[in-house]
Amino acid sequence: MAEHNLQKIDLSEYPHINKGLDGIVAFSTTKSFIDGQSGDLIYSGYHIDTLAENATFEEVCFLLWNDRLPNKQELDDLNKQLRNKRELPEPVLSYIQSTNKKAEPMAVLRTAVSMLADFVDETEGDNSYAITLTAQMPTIIAAFDRARNGNEIVAPLNEGSTAFNFLYMLNGEKPGEAAERTMDLCLVLHAEHGMNASTFTCRTICATESDIFSAVTGAIGALKGPLHGGANTAVMKTLLKLKDQGDDADPVAFTKGKLDRKEKIMGFGHRVYKTFDPRAVHLRKMSKTLSEETGHEYLYEWSEAMLKTMKDEKNIDPNVDFFSATVYYSIGIQPDLYTCIFTMSRVSGWTAHYFEQKANNRLIRPRALYVGEKNLEWVPAEKR
Amino acid sequence: MAEHNLQKIDLSEYPHINKGLDGIVAFSTTKSFIDGQSGDLIYSGYHIDTLAENATFEEVCFLLWNDRLPNKQELDDLNKQLRNKRELPEPVLSYIQSTNKKAEPMAVLRTAVSMLADFVDETEGDNSYAITLTAQMPTIIAAFDRARNGNEIVAPLNEGSTAFNFLYMLNGEKPGEAAERTMDLCLVLHAEHGMNASTFTCRTICATESDIFSAVTGAIGALKGPLHGGANTAVMKTLLKLKDQGDDADPVAFTKGKLDRKEKIMGFGHRVYKTFDPRAVHLRKMSKTLSEETGHEYLYEWSEAMLKTMKDEKNIDPNVDFFSATVYYSIGIQPDLYTCIFTMSRVSGWTAHYFEQKANNRLIRPRALYVGEKNLEWVPAEKR
Repeated sequence: MAEHNLQKIDLSEYPHINKGLDGIVAFSTTKSFIDGQSGDLIYSGYHIDTLAENATFEEVCFLLWNDRLPNKQELDDLNKQLRNKRELPEPVLSYIQSTNKKAEPMAVLRTAVSMLADFVDETEGDNSYAITLTAQMPTIIAAFDRARNGNEIVAPLNEGSTAFNFLYMLNGEKPGEAAERTMDLCLVLHAEHGMNASTFTCRTICATESDIFSAVTGAIGALKGPLHGGANTAVMKTLLKLKDQGDDADPVAFTKGKLDRKEKIMGFGHRVYKTFDPRAVHLRKMSKTLSEETGHEYLYEWSEAMLKTMKDEKNIDPNVDFFSATVYYSIGIQPDLYTCIFTMSRVSGWTAHYFEQKANNRLIRPRALYVGEKNLEWVPAEKR
Repeated sequence: MAEHNLQKIDLSEYPHINKGLDGIVAFSTTKSFIDGQSGDLIYSGYHIDTLAENATFEEVCFLLWNDRLPNKQELDDLNKQLRNKRELPEPVLSYIQSTNKKAEPMAVLRTAVSMLADFVDETEGDNSYAITLTAQMPTIIAAFDRARNGNEIVAPLNEGSTAFNFLYMLNGEKPGEAAERTMDLCLVLHAEHGMNASTFTCRTICATESDIFSAVTGAIGALKGPLHGGANTAVMKTLLKLKDQGDDADPVAFTKGKLDRKEKIMGFGHRVYKTFDPRAVHLRKMSKTLSEETGHEYLYEWSEAMLKTMKDEKNIDPNVDFFSATVYYSIGIQPDLYTCIFTMSRVSGWTAHYFEQKANNRLIRPRALYVGEKNLEWVPAEKR
């Protein structure tokens, strides 16, 4: 072997290993702004409160993709395109039908979305693919849930909003206005949220000049993680564990016990927000109303008790996942689907960031500090 | 709507938007060290020259996963496990058989790898999954290539090295010693390379506590990009375009013409190496030998002429992709499979980084600087 005269790495060049990339600004964006101190969130110019009160999910999609709201004609066109694209290619539907009942919903969604790439027309382009992804994700999720429960898969309707059609496909009957509005508002609130781990994954993949399906598939894998999108399912599991205690259920003692044992309590705290997550404000209201309407008051009450305990003991506020759990539970969605619902909304933000990255691209390649050996000599396997 | 008193972002906090995360150190690692100035590369303590001369791909897998070389027993055990896991679950094979002949190989690989997650035993754990991924990727790639060419799919053998078995499944006949050694050396050279975009994607997904299949699926999407793993296919396309010029083919004029038109020439330059890529040294030797043996001398000669032109005109050296293209071409692999071959090697490095990230984790979440509007008022669709 040749002799290698390797330089020692100059540690002064690397004063700090930033494991979370905290505070490192890697992008400029027009997609969203988060003020973690004041608890404000803006999508492309509009405050989340404004959008929660006024916008449909489809308007938010247009807003994020174009940095402006659509006029009536544009909104009608987008709705029409979304409706026309809801049906899945037959092989994707076959895959979903063939999956094991115990398959993880986010794993199935990841595979099905990856598979969609095989069926697109190369001439369509990214704008059209973003609409395809947004239109077909609800169909994938509903079809999987129907199939695993032994129910016949319900084909999408060529009418109604994304929220309406999703609940229709999921439950096999058309939802009422209140359920549709709840679902729509959840989609609005989860659409976009700065440089979170899945959006960052999406942009990192895009930056290699890879395609939008690769970027969104990767983002789904990131959102699947319990420290990211998986948190809302974990919140519901925690509440259901409390429910298992029956008459002895005591949310305050339960929370304190977890804190004493230094267990992580999902749905609290956020890397960016140092106050109440503005999305949680809206979800909290919904959770209250829905819990009362559906006879799950206790879940809302427990949530409030946990929230107060966390604030008193640790001064930590809830994040978006905390109340979205009870909202989804109240409208009858299985807990292990919550992260999928998050995904069918967030795909709008991911694809918006894909466009933005592509328009002003640079390969994303940080460094790692090597801390291993450098000059080991080869020893044959027999002598090791 | 409530009034929001949004603070202006303090630009002094963000002196610089680092679009590529250049120079930012996000990890410490024992997996690989690159000296971009001297052109040295180390995998877990061993120089790439040492490994190229002595190691098999399977030894490199063990090395990257464990930060030490295996003893004889451990190597035998790993080989046995890899051989035992080569066969694909039937539904994955069905998916591959059902794909369109024109489907992109990396897209099919991404979907098939994602699908593997549905068939693993939850009790197995990540070490076992890494072996599954390494064992089954070659089977996926070979099966897809056979199917799209109308050939019967060749089942893996429960014998021989990864390189041997891959060439056997791809071509339907057992490879000679030279072809196996070439393939094995290519796998050794591509196994690991610091914090590139796909490895970084893998770690970013892992950092949400997502699973190893999500992380590797995301990494495949990143490697698919033309600025990353897609480059070796692009190099071959360039050479074949030159070949199309027949007797008029002039690699020097061709390269200069591209430079004059400011077209990107794939296979040259690297974010980290400022000199000859040490992997390219080995691939260059292989390219020379193989081109002569297979009657493709002209490809090697053109490569050398392009290399000299690039050095003279731009002082840019070739990277790993430049000579791997002609090596793969000489052993009869279709150009659009080159990135898949890269993947079946690099999965060893990705999974090694997955283990390392998981052992010392922090959610990866950089920032984006918001440069959009902040206080837009809602206007109903009819009035826009």
